[in-house]
Amino acid sequence: MKMRTEKDSMGEIEVPANALYGAQTQRAINNFPISGQPLPPAFISAIAKIKAACAYANGKLNRLDQDKADAIITAADAVIAGQHTAEFPIDIYQTGSGTSTNMNVNEVLAHLAATELGQAVSANDDVNMGQSSNDVIPSAVHVSAALSLSTGLMPALLQLEQAISTKGEQLKDKVKTGRTHLMDAMPLRFDQELGGWATQIRYASQRLDGLQSRLQQLALGGTAIGTGINADPRQAQLACDYLNQHTGLNFCPAEDYFYSLSSQDTAVELSGQLKTLAVALMKIANDLRWMNSGPLTGIAEIQLPALQPGSSIMPGKVNPVIPEAVAMVAAQIIGLDTANTVAGQSGNFQLNVMLPLVANNLLTMTQLLANSAPLLAQAISGFTVNQAHIDENLAKNPILVTALNPVIGYDKAAKIAKLAYKEQRPILEVALEHTDLSEDQLRKLLDPAALTR
Amino acid sequence: MKMRTEKDSMGEIEVPANALYGAQTQRAINNFPISGQPLPPAFISAIAKIKAACAYANGKLNRLDQDKADAIITAADAVIAGQHTAEFPIDIYQTGSGTSTNMNVNEVLAHLAATELGQAVSANDDVNMGQSSNDVIPSAVHVSAALSLSTGLMPALLQLEQAISTKGEQLKDKVKTGRTHLMDAMPLRFDQELGGWATQIRYASQRLDGLQSRLQQLALGGTAIGTGINADPRQAQLACDYLNQHTGLNFCPAEDYFYSLSSQDTAVELSGQLKTLAVALMKIANDLRWMNSGPLTGIAEIQLPALQPGSSIMPGKVNPVIPEAVAMVAAQIIGLDTANTVAGQSGNFQLNVMLPLVANNLLTMTQLLANSAPLLAQAISGFTVNQAHIDENLAKNPILVTALNPVIGYDKAAKIAKLAYKEQRPILEVALEHTDLSEDQLRKLLDPAALTR
Amino acid sequence: MKMRTEKDSMGEIEVPANALYGAQTQRAINNFPISGQPLPPAFISAIAKIKAACAYANGKLNRLDQDKADAIITAADAVIAGQHTAEFPIDIYQTGSGTSTNMNVNEVLAHLAATELGQAVSANDDVNMGQSSNDVIPSAVHVSAALSLSTGLMPALLQLEQAISTKGEQLKDKVKTGRTHLMDAMPLRFDQELGGWATQIRYASQRLDGLQSRLQQLALGGTAIGTGINADPRQAQLACDYLNQHTGLNFCPAEDYFYSLSSQDTAVELSGQLKTLAVALMKIANDLRWMNSGPLTGIAEIQLPALQPGSSIMPGKVNPVIPEAVAMVAAQIIGLDTANTVAGQSGNFQLNVMLPLVANNLLTMTQLLANSAPLLAQAISGFTVNQAHIDENLAKNPILVTALNPVIGYDKAAKIAKLAYKEQRPILEVALEHTDLSEDQLRKLLDPAALTR
Amino acid sequence: MKMRTEKDSMGEIEVPANALYGAQTQRAINNFPISGQPLPPAFISAIAKIKAACAYANGKLNRLDQDKADAIITAADAVIAGQHTAEFPIDIYQTGSGTSTNMNVNEVLAHLAATELGQAVSANDDVNMGQSSNDVIPSAVHVSAALSLSTGLMPALLQLEQAISTKGEQLKDKVKTGRTHLMDAMPLRFDQELGGWATQIRYASQRLDGLQSRLQQLALGGTAIGTGINADPRQAQLACDYLNQHTGLNFCPAEDYFYSLSSQDTAVELSGQLKTLAVALMKIANDLRWMNSGPLTGIAEIQLPALQPGSSIMPGKVNPVIPEAVAMVAAQIIGLDTANTVAGQSGNFQLNVMLPLVANNLLTMTQLLANSAPLLAQAISGFTVNQAHIDENLAKNPILVTALNPVIGYDKAAKIAKLAYKEQRPILEVALEHTDLSEDQLRKLLDPAALTR
Repeated sequence: MKMRTEKDSMGEIEVPANALYGAQTQRAINNFPISGQPLPPAFISAIAKIKAACAYANGKLNRLDQDKADAIITAADAVIAGQHTAEFPIDIYQTGSGTSTNMNVNEVLAHLAATELGQAVSANDDVNMGQSSNDVIPSAVHVSAALSLSTGLMPALLQLEQAISTKGEQLKDKVKTGRTHLMDAMPLRFDQELGGWATQIRYASQRLDGLQSRLQQLALGGTAIGTGINADPRQAQLACDYLNQHTGLNFCPAEDYFYSLSSQDTAVELSGQLKTLAVALMKIANDLRWMNSGPLTGIAEIQLPALQPGSSIMPGKVNPVIPEAVAMVAAQIIGLDTANTVAGQSGNFQLNVMLPLVANNLLTMTQLLANSAPLLAQAISGFTVNQAHIDENLAKNPILVTALNPVIGYDKAAKIAKLAYKEQRPILEVALEHTDLSEDQLRKLLDPAALTR
Repeated sequence: MKMRTEKDSMGEIEVPANALYGAQTQRAINNFPISGQPLPPAFISAIAKIKAACAYANGKLNRLDQDKADAIITAADAVIAGQHTAEFPIDIYQTGSGTSTNMNVNEVLAHLAATELGQAVSANDDVNMGQSSNDVIPSAVHVSAALSLSTGLMPALLQLEQAISTKGEQLKDKVKTGRTHLMDAMPLRFDQELGGWATQIRYASQRLDGLQSRLQQLALGGTAIGTGINADPRQAQLACDYLNQHTGLNFCPAEDYFYSLSSQDTAVELSGQLKTLAVALMKIANDLRWMNSGPLTGIAEIQLPALQPGSSIMPGKVNPVIPEAVAMVAAQIIGLDTANTVAGQSGNFQLNVMLPLVANNLLTMTQLLANSAPLLAQAISGFTVNQAHIDENLAKNPILVTALNPVIGYDKAAKIAKLAYKEQRPILEVALEHTDLSEDQLRKLLDPAALTR
Repeated sequence: MKMRTEKDSMGEIEVPANALYGAQTQRAINNFPISGQPLPPAFISAIAKIKAACAYANGKLNRLDQDKADAIITAADAVIAGQHTAEFPIDIYQTGSGTSTNMNVNEVLAHLAATELGQAVSANDDVNMGQSSNDVIPSAVHVSAALSLSTGLMPALLQLEQAISTKGEQLKDKVKTGRTHLMDAMPLRFDQELGGWATQIRYASQRLDGLQSRLQQLALGGTAIGTGINADPRQAQLACDYLNQHTGLNFCPAEDYFYSLSSQDTAVELSGQLKTLAVALMKIANDLRWMNSGPLTGIAEIQLPALQPGSSIMPGKVNPVIPEAVAMVAAQIIGLDTANTVAGQSGNFQLNVMLPLVANNLLTMTQLLANSAPLLAQAISGFTVNQAHIDENLAKNPILVTALNPVIGYDKAAKIAKLAYKEQRPILEVALEHTDLSEDQLRKLLDPAALTR
Repeated sequence: MKMRTEKDSMGEIEVPANALYGAQTQRAINNFPISGQPLPPAFISAIAKIKAACAYANGKLNRLDQDKADAIITAADAVIAGQHTAEFPIDIYQTGSGTSTNMNVNEVLAHLAATELGQAVSANDDVNMGQSSNDVIPSAVHVSAALSLSTGLMPALLQLEQAISTKGEQLKDKVKTGRTHLMDAMPLRFDQELGGWATQIRYASQRLDGLQSRLQQLALGGTAIGTGINADPRQAQLACDYLNQHTGLNFCPAEDYFYSLSSQDTAVELSGQLKTLAVALMKIANDLRWMNSGPLTGIAEIQLPALQPGSSIMPGKVNPVIPEAVAMVAAQIIGLDTANTVAGQSGNFQLNVMLPLVANNLLTMTQLLANSAPLLAQAISGFTVNQAHIDENLAKNPILVTALNPVIGYDKAAKIAKLAYKEQRPILEVALEHTDLSEDQLRKLLDPAALTR
């Protein structure tokens, strides 16, 4: 490979001749051969947005030549548009502040801007003007996560909630035996059961909305340790204005820069709420799997769409593959939340130093969830109900005797239920023998559909 | 032990002659010799409150004789007042619905009410009227957690936040060297550093406030599976009115009973927010420990109050015992959140069946946090600052050169800093030699106190 | 309360007049009003054993008067016998080294020994001779955990494994439809299915055996930081001899004291293996719950013993309460393992400082597991099989066509299976129509029992 | 893109014209657009090894034409050699059994083998002969993990342990102040401190060795549910012989196939041991970071190699980037262990259905650890010791008074230490005033170097 020599405050180093990045990026590439995985494009893009916003602000404040500011913005836009993905190869596992990635972006933008302008642009003094990795990277964690929510996960959750509600609406006359402790319980309708799932998803969205007031606060302006050294005090608000204009969100300078740099509590909060969503998805995925189980020796209430042959050895087998994939996503989210929880504890004094990990995990989590929600929505929209099978036992269920409690009391009702179980007879028949209630009364009292209202 | 014979739907069983509970409690005592730990009094009390509320509602609705209703309320009040703690001995690890504990309360209240009235009161038909374990226990999870927050944790967090802020205010003229990556960085003031902690605690409170709209929704009224079978539709609201009058909170019937019975998402959310608080406390506790470290070979910025001899072998040693205890609390909270996360996944179909675990863990978490926050507040209020030691290196710190970036550029600044490190000379002296800036200019630019503003 | 004045290196303090403990215990009682829970008796007992062992060793080495040594041993024996439980009230959440609890034991034993001897015995110089909290407490973590394993958990696991194996043996002629992805798969016998569970338990025991070589290494002899300051180099081996004589185990001085004091890796390892066991129990408990589900709308393969009424509202309901309790235990173990994992990271330099947490969590974990294993064993021993229900679909299952793969190929077999599903006809009938195989051949090839061998 | 039509038991589907895979792979590509990440090459390679091994076995057993067997082996070797990486694009989040990936390998090998032979080779009947995804995928989890350990992690741990030991040996005459609770304690030597780290790594290796007897057991031969349907009973042993010849390990058919298919306990165990290693690395990384902290206001005992500029804003700053990267790796390992713990619980009845997740996470974990251990080794090998700074306080430390305990007793020693702290005087000076010991005696008793032996 053809190489060129670059220089930073530590001295000279060889970089690939056609690389847009410089010395510090190269050092980081050499220093961290760990996962082989770079930080995701969405994170690089968020940093580039911040760089453009700061160039705009510093141009406006006459700290940065307007030409340079414009050139940096143009360069950032190219990165945001995805034109230079390969120029950001630094491993996720790097310096805990993400300084290597901040300098990578600084170097690439400086290179691009200088090429456009035909004059030197400094990665540190120009592109990074009024900034530090210590405010840029935490800001990029918030910006990338907020955008991933607003453009990815939130719409996906809405779609899922609507798919569930619509399906429930379609099935609102279908009655089934409820289950508690996995044991036959009182009846309910599919729309009620699915309604519970829809509420789980709706509340998950509410939870994510509820943290926006903290997530949209940016560390930007705090610079090195929160005091804002070397930044114009007006820069942060101007940069947020720029960001808001270009994203439609409502970013603002943090109320407390010292909080924003030294802790990742807001990221931990977001992670915890994504975990809560994962728990909800696990419940829904498991219910679907069990409702679909069988067809002969399972619960067999529904049939999920058949998407692929289920077995390499058992011909004709079809498996609930989408709920399984979603359940695996949920498991991974729960695990990544634990990683973030450990990371959140790694903030000594003025800076948390597991930022690249947190950045990557949050984006992984939102992407996995955003991509699996629509698949789950399709699976739910597409399932069919085995009503005949459901009806076989619906009215026979001894637990229906519960409806007689107010009339005959729990103890007597229990005796009747036990007898019905023992003799495997319909509950109505046994109740008729052991109460003073008429068949007509019993038929009304024990009507499964009526019992769901 | 003298015994008497009790009976339930499964038959007869011997119970201690003077026990207030009956057959089902005894079965559960026998069935679950696992942890030796009963559910906490705060949880039993929450169930008793719900029982009183339902008796009130059903009396009002003329479903329950007013005499019985009053007697049940009187009995519940005695339990709430802590008069019968030993009557609720069932293990935490029991049936996943907490039915055993619900029946335990039903039996004790029926016994007390019957004794007062001189007539039979049924545990199932009277005390449990219009209720099921499946709505009572999830409601009690919410009620006990909400009360534990409002009377325990929230005031404790406020106290901690105020103690930190007050201390910060007291130290607002004290400047110290900041640290990022544990390495010397730019200076900041104690009030800034402690302000970050105070914000961590304030946001933790905000997070807990933010979930109240979900936490104060009660499953009550959903009965067996969410359809509300056997409950008067007006009962839930009346019961909530009673609860609100007696607790000052704003409980309401759940928007979606199927959500409230089948999932514990709201409990998982609360657990996750307590975990976020734990992460914040871990950060603060660790910062305190490190600031206090030494006195000779540590950071030695502050001295925590000396509370007890630190070592059984090393005379004169004093350790940061309160931050250590708080850090252990944080570790346990993080662990219990994982347990709750597993529990939250255990809701198949219409009922989550790890309710007693969730109930106990949430109360353990809030209690540990509520009790340790004031201790941490005291430790923070009481520490003294070793300003002389801090001042030794404050102005010498080569990193102060950062302030010269806008004047001389990053690269030149780096050279000066490196030289200062290498020759172990004060940064001002080196900067004087290698820039055109006058000593006066440099003294102003490099003044640590000025750099914090 | 009547009080007396006690003194330590920090000065005077009031303690209850009849308390056996002294000043340092009282300070710790005052300092840590956090959980209200003291460390468990098994942990106090382990410390007392170590104190006796050291008194024995130092007597033998002529560093401690034989009279004092004997009196300390007598005092320790009383504590081990459980005579003074209330004298050890210090909270779990205390100094991270457990120094408070070590001094509590030192003070109580000194008091008892002095009373017996009629002469002063020093808590620090005599009872704690050649020891530090920093080697005593990590040693007590290992001793108490090792004893809890050997006398509690290991026998319980053996009992469980045997109960499962015996049950499998009893059911070895019972064939059922296997399930993968919850969907009907090829048949297997109950002894095969239960055999898998038995292996899970057996391997869990193997895992716990495999860490004994590390667990039975004691920090004892390392004293303050691992260098063994103030301890006779022969003391540790003599103390281990004493411990082994009194416990039947094989404790030895650690290969590397610096490892033993500064890390809790071995405790984290043990915790992780207990977590693996919890995962195994969760699987078994869940399989049992699902096999027992129904009776009408579930899988209904087995019936677990009926232990108590299942519902406060639904008469006649019986729930799988033991598997539920065991599953909750498993969830808690998984959570406590996370807590221990956080604790394991809290060892800076020469000492881990979350020792009381680790001590308590390990003992909680082993106790919960030891107590729930026999209950699960009973549930397994006691279940009955609904063979008639199982047989209904056993031979009809289209997946049995798998057995024809080697004869007719996967693709053709798939077509036959799909047809059988679609037309809901027995697989044999469909295969007869669409292959050249005779009914006799098919009957042999598709015989469920034969397919399990 | 040019397409061709492929067919499976569900019907026709278009696949890219030049793809080596077939219909089922394409369905899975379409079904699972979730993470965008395929399973890692090491996992595909392990499946290919198993395919070759089974072709070998079935050829030998005359169930498969020798020509076909040879062609399948040749095809598998090409995959193992990494020639067709792009042909295995199916997402990690797919069917829980990994059937899609098993069929992907079957299809690609069938295609390659057919091309070589010039005759049809069936993905199901030939390549998958005597196999099921349900034994192949769990086997591939074990094979890929075992190889990743033996060729990656174990040598890396050995290298790390040796680097630490060598460094310790080099520093064996260097004495420093020990720290417990972060507070000054008795002195120790660098070789003792680093020795503790080396033991942590050595025991981590021991733990991984200890699970090999379970990890090298393969599900292979159990086929669909553990009964071995459609496999020759001799196939598994022959396949293991082949694998062992080609890997140098000791794989064998599992003792209990029902265990191997239905549970992932052994994977959970491995995951837990990797987590224990992560905890150890976190301790070492943190100690290094703190020892390196400063240079002015930290502990400043050592200086790690300077690898890159530490800050984009603070010139001259150098940060402990390798320990930070390693700590992030540790955090991620801990998180992935939680994910695996959730996955381990997802085995209902005869099959665990989170296999692709477990496969991917275990390989991610071993790779991250294997790649970061050598970097940590370099950092440790390369650090220099600031002995002058260490020596400043070494002999002055009042805690050295501990050495006088046996002579003057703890209480008197405490008084002397407190006085020394208060008056900030060297301990020797104060001890000389307050004891009968001569300066010479004291000098010997309080010599830091002597106190480390």
